[in-house]
Amino acid sequence: MCGIIGVFNHPEASNISYLGLYALQHRGQESGGIISTDGNEFYSHKAMGLVSDIFPKETIDRLKGNLAIGHVRYSTTGASLLNNSQPFLINYAHGTLVVAHNGNLVNAEEIKHDLVSKGAIFQSSMDTEVIMHLIAQYPEESLIERIAYALKRVSGAYSLLFMTHDRLITARDPHGIRPLVLGRLGDSWVVASETCVFDLIEAEFVREVEPGEILVISKKGLKSYHPFPPRKPANCIFEHIYFARPDSVLFGDTVYEIRKELGRVLAREHPVEADIVIPVPDSGIPAAIGYAQELNLPWEMGLIRNHYVGRTFIEPSQSIRHFGVKIKLNAVRSVLEGKRVVVIDDSIVRGTTSRKIIKMIRAAGAREIHVRISSPPTDFPCYYGIDTPTRMELIASSHSVEDIRRYITADSLGYVTARALNDAVDANHSFCDACFTGKYPIRFPGIESGQPRQPTLF
Amino acid sequence: MCGIIGVFNHPEASNISYLGLYALQHRGQESGGIISTDGNEFYSHKAMGLVSDIFPKETIDRLKGNLAIGHVRYSTTGASLLNNSQPFLINYAHGTLVVAHNGNLVNAEEIKHDLVSKGAIFQSSMDTEVIMHLIAQYPEESLIERIAYALKRVSGAYSLLFMTHDRLITARDPHGIRPLVLGRLGDSWVVASETCVFDLIEAEFVREVEPGEILVISKKGLKSYHPFPPRKPANCIFEHIYFARPDSVLFGDTVYEIRKELGRVLAREHPVEADIVIPVPDSGIPAAIGYAQELNLPWEMGLIRNHYVGRTFIEPSQSIRHFGVKIKLNAVRSVLEGKRVVVIDDSIVRGTTSRKIIKMIRAAGAREIHVRISSPPTDFPCYYGIDTPTRMELIASSHSVEDIRRYITADSLGYVTARALNDAVDANHSFCDACFTGKYPIRFPGIESGQPRQPTLF
Amino acid sequence: MCGIIGVFNHPEASNISYLGLYALQHRGQESGGIISTDGNEFYSHKAMGLVSDIFPKETIDRLKGNLAIGHVRYSTTGASLLNNSQPFLINYAHGTLVVAHNGNLVNAEEIKHDLVSKGAIFQSSMDTEVIMHLIAQYPEESLIERIAYALKRVSGAYSLLFMTHDRLITARDPHGIRPLVLGRLGDSWVVASETCVFDLIEAEFVREVEPGEILVISKKGLKSYHPFPPRKPANCIFEHIYFARPDSVLFGDTVYEIRKELGRVLAREHPVEADIVIPVPDSGIPAAIGYAQELNLPWEMGLIRNHYVGRTFIEPSQSIRHFGVKIKLNAVRSVLEGKRVVVIDDSIVRGTTSRKIIKMIRAAGAREIHVRISSPPTDFPCYYGIDTPTRMELIASSHSVEDIRRYITADSLGYVTARALNDAVDANHSFCDACFTGKYPIRFPGIESGQPRQPTLF
Amino acid sequence: MCGIIGVFNHPEASNISYLGLYALQHRGQESGGIISTDGNEFYSHKAMGLVSDIFPKETIDRLKGNLAIGHVRYSTTGASLLNNSQPFLINYAHGTLVVAHNGNLVNAEEIKHDLVSKGAIFQSSMDTEVIMHLIAQYPEESLIERIAYALKRVSGAYSLLFMTHDRLITARDPHGIRPLVLGRLGDSWVVASETCVFDLIEAEFVREVEPGEILVISKKGLKSYHPFPPRKPANCIFEHIYFARPDSVLFGDTVYEIRKELGRVLAREHPVEADIVIPVPDSGIPAAIGYAQELNLPWEMGLIRNHYVGRTFIEPSQSIRHFGVKIKLNAVRSVLEGKRVVVIDDSIVRGTTSRKIIKMIRAAGAREIHVRISSPPTDFPCYYGIDTPTRMELIASSHSVEDIRRYITADSLGYVTARALNDAVDANHSFCDACFTGKYPIRFPGIESGQPRQPTLF
Repeated sequence: MCGIIGVFNHPEASNISYLGLYALQHRGQESGGIISTDGNEFYSHKAMGLVSDIFPKETIDRLKGNLAIGHVRYSTTGASLLNNSQPFLINYAHGTLVVAHNGNLVNAEEIKHDLVSKGAIFQSSMDTEVIMHLIAQYPEESLIERIAYALKRVSGAYSLLFMTHDRLITARDPHGIRPLVLGRLGDSWVVASETCVFDLIEAEFVREVEPGEILVISKKGLKSYHPFPPRKPANCIFEHIYFARPDSVLFGDTVYEIRKELGRVLAREHPVEADIVIPVPDSGIPAAIGYAQELNLPWEMGLIRNHYVGRTFIEPSQSIRHFGVKIKLNAVRSVLEGKRVVVIDDSIVRGTTSRKIIKMIRAAGAREIHVRISSPPTDFPCYYGIDTPTRMELIASSHSVEDIRRYITADSLGYVTARALNDAVDANHSFCDACFTGKYPIRFPGIESGQPRQPTLF
Repeated sequence: MCGIIGVFNHPEASNISYLGLYALQHRGQESGGIISTDGNEFYSHKAMGLVSDIFPKETIDRLKGNLAIGHVRYSTTGASLLNNSQPFLINYAHGTLVVAHNGNLVNAEEIKHDLVSKGAIFQSSMDTEVIMHLIAQYPEESLIERIAYALKRVSGAYSLLFMTHDRLITARDPHGIRPLVLGRLGDSWVVASETCVFDLIEAEFVREVEPGEILVISKKGLKSYHPFPPRKPANCIFEHIYFARPDSVLFGDTVYEIRKELGRVLAREHPVEADIVIPVPDSGIPAAIGYAQELNLPWEMGLIRNHYVGRTFIEPSQSIRHFGVKIKLNAVRSVLEGKRVVVIDDSIVRGTTSRKIIKMIRAAGAREIHVRISSPPTDFPCYYGIDTPTRMELIASSHSVEDIRRYITADSLGYVTARALNDAVDANHSFCDACFTGKYPIRFPGIESGQPRQPTLF
Repeated sequence: MCGIIGVFNHPEASNISYLGLYALQHRGQESGGIISTDGNEFYSHKAMGLVSDIFPKETIDRLKGNLAIGHVRYSTTGASLLNNSQPFLINYAHGTLVVAHNGNLVNAEEIKHDLVSKGAIFQSSMDTEVIMHLIAQYPEESLIERIAYALKRVSGAYSLLFMTHDRLITARDPHGIRPLVLGRLGDSWVVASETCVFDLIEAEFVREVEPGEILVISKKGLKSYHPFPPRKPANCIFEHIYFARPDSVLFGDTVYEIRKELGRVLAREHPVEADIVIPVPDSGIPAAIGYAQELNLPWEMGLIRNHYVGRTFIEPSQSIRHFGVKIKLNAVRSVLEGKRVVVIDDSIVRGTTSRKIIKMIRAAGAREIHVRISSPPTDFPCYYGIDTPTRMELIASSHSVEDIRRYITADSLGYVTARALNDAVDANHSFCDACFTGKYPIRFPGIESGQPRQPTLF
Repeated sequence: MCGIIGVFNHPEASNISYLGLYALQHRGQESGGIISTDGNEFYSHKAMGLVSDIFPKETIDRLKGNLAIGHVRYSTTGASLLNNSQPFLINYAHGTLVVAHNGNLVNAEEIKHDLVSKGAIFQSSMDTEVIMHLIAQYPEESLIERIAYALKRVSGAYSLLFMTHDRLITARDPHGIRPLVLGRLGDSWVVASETCVFDLIEAEFVREVEPGEILVISKKGLKSYHPFPPRKPANCIFEHIYFARPDSVLFGDTVYEIRKELGRVLAREHPVEADIVIPVPDSGIPAAIGYAQELNLPWEMGLIRNHYVGRTFIEPSQSIRHFGVKIKLNAVRSVLEGKRVVVIDDSIVRGTTSRKIIKMIRAAGAREIHVRISSPPTDFPCYYGIDTPTRMELIASSHSVEDIRRYITADSLGYVTARALNDAVDANHSFCDACFTGKYPIRFPGIESGQPRQPTLF
């Protein structure tokens, strides 16, 4: 997953971008980058690590200009990590173009195959590079037409920021899968993945960038293009369930409230006699509140999170094993001992973490452990940008709820149903819930919609 | 403040120490160090930064041996920071001695003056160095007698770990101000500042190191000495209120439970008609639970904490100002809008942070804001190891509760009373609450107890 | 300037590459990189800095496989330095291709213009990227034909190493401007910029890669292609005069001997009555020996070089100024005092360094200072890879020898003549001496040979 | 070995110190440090590495004040390297005292034993710490008397710089073993190990700090003390032969000239029929010049030195072995092939390096190899600061010249005789040549002069 920010017409554009990335750090902790321009030169810094570590003041000072875009990224490990970090800068026939991308294309491989067969060279394994090739190849003068052409060729999820020496251009796929919002900060415009950025920099939220919109921000003001035929929106439901920050307003609703409502729904669908409700912190907290409120049960913090978890944890080789979740969470015996405990989590992926958490809670003296998940079983992988494992590894894709309960050693296990999930989220919206239903809104190349296959990623 | 750990007879002593420091990181984020011994050589690594950053695997591998002690430290900035980091190693008449210290001495300056007048040289500004000089100078063969002599000379708070090439010796001041606990891990012994270490490394909690005890751990087993006349215990109440981790068992009670109970007490002392209770995360959470439960009010997470706050935050110079607390916390409008909100925090120091938090909550639409503090007003500085500011800077030392309320712009403000605080904590214990009452349990040199002055620190 | 090395079929290919780069460090101190392959994956490390600093053992260990190429690079500062570092890896229609390049193309801009007009995108400012695009675009299956096509399109100086998952391919421009040599190390093949690499790794020198040759090294052995019409060789004379290491055998001659012979020639052309001959170390040493031997004068080390010159020298801001050459060189008074001194240097570029050296020698008491330069006046810039300044900055391009003498404050000044230079170097060779004569062997696009213009570099 | 510099009354004292250390880098490459004072605070930076790497501009800027001392150090590896780096700062009865030390004490262990038996603690393994204890313990108000007392107690070689908040105090042992010179830079005073510092910073050489002198530099000017009874000087002859920079004026003579004269002496004592003389660079160059001039033979650079030798060279594990000297030096075949070669080196320690060099020269085609050493056989270890190995490892202490010749595989081998060495150096001086003669000028504790034993170093 990734987080993006673009700043137009601000004297400290790179510093605002830095703050924005900092507020979006939860969307990607592996690498970060900012490219700025003073209308003449382009200034770039990309590095592996957390935003607060990789952008010392001297670096920010070096990133001059009123226009900047930034990017944070999480990805599985690969051979040439820094090569794949963004923003991504190219020189092409019409000058310099910079891009930052959140999302994932489903037909990148096909287009790439086509491009390389015609002689294109690729220097990264990012699907974003495919978009840049398409933009560069289209025989039109206008950048907007080139971008529109490129985006018509690709399928998938994308929230995009382009930067030239004097324009900030943002685009969102016709389904609006990943979030993208527009804000105003005095005379400056800011585009970001989530509204929590605006809270931090004290910008005013203006509106979402619309699904299928290409929005050009220049000295002449804002100009909006809608080159695509309208599609049914398919906002990613998993942003609400897990990914986004709870204080963000996403697709029109506060994430926190959706999560709390899912807790209520869960309580109605899977009530249980219990002494206490505890969340798996931090993402499980709002749902735990909703669940507890609905059943009038007390809720407490029975699991304490260590805030200093580093990225490189060294596990002792000989004598201590399987730290796993212990390095992040600890159970509070006095809260749990002798209690019937409801544990609220947002999802179960492979099941191994849940199993360890339950073991820890039971070791702390819990009498009964009832696991409640504030989403339906995750049966299908996401091809639109969330790094879920393949179906093979998703425990829910091949096991019944009872199987999973036994594996994680819970006394009971309940998920929100897909129907209840749909009722819980705003009726005016239409979400992508393919990870629960397998109903993928975007076709894979050569396949009918709704019949996904695992694309071979390059 | 500091955190310490000692490991005896473990094949991966330095790795266990590393894990222990990791669990104690909340006690000091500025620098960390581990010194180990294989019975022959001593191996040392000390550096500025977080434990997970400064101990790469190669470094841990280099710290050989079955015996190790570690230290994490927070301190205000100074000229030669690394010089002051611990553990601290000396060579003296009887070989090598290593020490790690949590606490603060009140007569270090006087003893230091005496020592230097006799020709001693000091290479750091740590009061720990005073103890080492006293140990080295006492004309006795036995290290235990030397340590006992040194500790009889010093006054103040200390939880100490000493290491020779074959022994781990731990000592705690007669008042037991700072915590110190003994655990067992198979055939190994572990001594640490808090029990959360034992949870992580799966050691068994054995008992507290007793106030006034010197405990020697060697191949021959454990041997305990009590060289001091018994004193009335004076466990630091502020460890319970703020400093320790909520999952630790401290002075016989779980921190989490004490905090929750303080919330209940607070509710009884300062009830208010409200719609919602919110904590200032993370330390205010248990008290918020207690407060809400007592008054049967809902509690929610109206403030979201950013978990990626780096140590060096760059504030934009020109256009954005006074980020202060915003970089750490954000208010959730949907939770707060139109509500009468009770905000639970553990203490008010200078008042500036509270003022910013309240401004943020009000900007998010709260109708009324009632601040409740789960401790009495902090009138007096701590001389026993907690880095509170001087009285001059403590807002409560010179302002009435009403003054403070006005300053922080709350609609109402209530503190737990000192009496209620005492009732809330275990009746069997006797705490140091000097920061609230000014009743300092340990005399300053030349002054009567209870009449503190600000010691000149060297 | 750059240095390159390729290693085929060696179990420690990346380590041999590291050693090779280390021996070639004089060809580029700014950045270094190695890419290796085990036939399956490609492993890469590139960084700014000296080879001995940027390749710790763990990094070398990570660069697995029997096949590797390495690159060191010097370049003027630019916006995105690391982006421009080599080796350079692309994915294209036929898999992965890695390249390392020493030299400079003169028609890269024209080809690039053509490529981008057809939609190509460029991610660096290296002319090497042009070659990669041409290779990728040519509609032929065979990589050799693709490479041949690409090299026929480009003009300029290039010694190239290509690597696929199982082949090492090396190519040299038809004029053979930059050096490139082939060596054997047991069952392995090594290709490198200079023979000093073979001395270090104890490889056997086999032969030069021939001008215009494309040499393919694979499991099947060596296969040589000569796709270009034969051209008159034009080996860079400045490699002999300054750039290459004196212990290398270059274009058939030992650099040291050529330099010494130039000293002899210089002595014959510009003898002087003097007490002592001193070189500007280290490049001036062999010419000083030749000069001294020819005139039967003593030669000594009147200038001492500091071997610890770092890349970032901090000049005091207030009181000490214009360190310039003093940080690198110091004059030995006892050698120089009262003497008539001949100072031998290889070239004068801007004249500022010579002026400072002469000032230093005179301050050390020299009675007369006669400067002798072991090459003709540098009138013209190099477009084939040596980072000489533009004509505007070359003092010799706009000033007479007498003007230069006055500027550098020498008592006399003599250069080797172009004719004598030609006589001095092996008669069987034909060199490029365009920097002295302006006779550029390779035409610039659209211009007749011998009428150079300053190409606009992108 | 170490290098030291002190700067008094200069607005950029730390920057001048940095430049001084840079010029003294040959005296110690392992660690460096500077401590400065503005009369109030002390500012310190010490780190492992080369001066040009460990003092970035920000660090120099942080080291404020008009008064500073610096230190570079070479030492064999140890457990706690940074702990042992200098300058060394203590707080004692009379404030703060900083010291930098070049040399080695012979009775430090005895005094340390005495000090620790009285209760002193040691935090490093530096003998300098002994001096600081003695200064702190002496019951006198005056710092000069304290220093005099301490220096009367210790025996050995020391060139010392002390710094208080307002004074720079320098002292040299009564034998004047290590060099120490005083210079003037405008209104500032500079004290340094060698005069090459003055050349760089453009200071004027005033005089040597005299053997046995304590020189106090304060706002009141210079004040000199001579608390010791006069001793026969014993300047270290090995500074001239190997250690000092050739451009330094040492003990009244230019190092370069002494070395050249030793070459002449060597030629007279061990002439040989040969075609060419080559030095082992760089220390052997002046002696090679002298040797060649005396016999009227040509001298050339038959061995080329790689200037980019890093401190951490990674030797390939499997296939290439015993790089040793090859990574630093390469032989030039064209210079050596078929020749009778005289190789001039300054000394032979273990013999292993010489053996490798000769092997390399022979492999380059030399017909005969005659090794000439510009000093007598190194029979005895140095206890006064030069890190020669113990007698056990010194090949000359247990082998005849003929044995050594055979071991290093030379055709002939000649050393300068001790008598000729004495004649060669200035007759007005009296040198310590204990490494050649075993006549140690300073007694070891409890032993008669001239009968050395290996002191146990702590």
